[in-house]
Order: sequence, then structure tokens, then C-alpha cells
Amino acid sequence: MQLKLAFGEVIKAHRIRLGYSQEHLAHLCELDRTYIGLLERGKRNPSLKTIFVISENLEITPSSLVNEVEKKITNQTSST
Amino acid sequence: MQLKLAFGEVIKAHRIRLGYSQEHLAHLCELDRTYIGLLERGKRNPSLKTIFVISENLEITPSSLVNEVEKKITNQTSST
Repeated sequence: MQLKLAFGEVIKAHRIRLGYSQEHLAHLCELDRTYIGLLERGKRNPSLKTIFVISENLEITPSSLVNEVEKKITNQTSST
Repeated sequence: MQLKLAFGEVIKAHRIRLGYSQEHLAHLCELDRTYIGLLERGKRNPSLKTIFVISENLEITPSSLVNEVEKKITNQTSST
């Protein structure tokens, strides 16, 4: 699985776990709702700072989030 | 400690552990040597893709690298 798409799936799953809309997560992170949508669809390559801000608001550590992304991209045939 | 600076210190320590010059690491990562220097000095905010590429070439997992960054920014008084 492609890296950006894996990241998108991981953050979407955590957002839904918390019962947040994209708009609510965007508000918490001080990011645009559109940007959250693009991230979830694997259309953006987030920065370190964004990864830390989103993780904090999804109530997980950045390293846990990145670990979930790693698992997704290594458990499946790479399409990068 | 500021996030970007923490990231820079972590990658520098791993680069030195492996005995790599900035130029060598840059070559492995297909990045500019100047960019590695800027990252190490906390002057750039790397993307998810860059974090994964650098981690691979520093022979650590991206989540381990991010975990080291987390420790640095939480063990010290924040200057963000």
C-alpha cells in the first residue's frame, strides 16, 4: 500500500473511533476541513508538525500512528 | 525542545552512529546535501515520505525515529 494512502486510512480509522467529523478534527488541529479530507484520501503528504498535531488530537502518540502506517505498507504488496 | 530541532538531533545522532557524512546520507536518500544539513539544524519540517526515506537509510523504523523525537520534546521544557 502506498504511504500516503496508508496514513489516510489510519487517521480516518482513529477519527471514526473517536466519533469525530472531519470538520471537528480539522477544528481541533487548526487545519482546513478540506485538508483533512485530502489526507484521508491519500492525496497529501503531511509534515512532521502536522503528524504530531493530528496524533495529539486523535489521542495517540505520533510513534503509534506511524507504527500503524508502517504495518499497513509492509503487510501488503507495495504499490509505490 | 522544539519539534524540528528534536528531529534534527535524532537524525544527526543516527547518521554519526553509522559513520555517514551528510553527503552520503543525502545520496542514499536521493535528497540534497544542503537539505540534510537544514534538517539537522531544525530548519526544515520534513514530510511523511521524507521521514520514511531517511529512517530506512538510517536503518531504523520510522516509528522508532518518531519515538525518539517524542522523548526529546517531552523530556525538556517546551520552547515551541
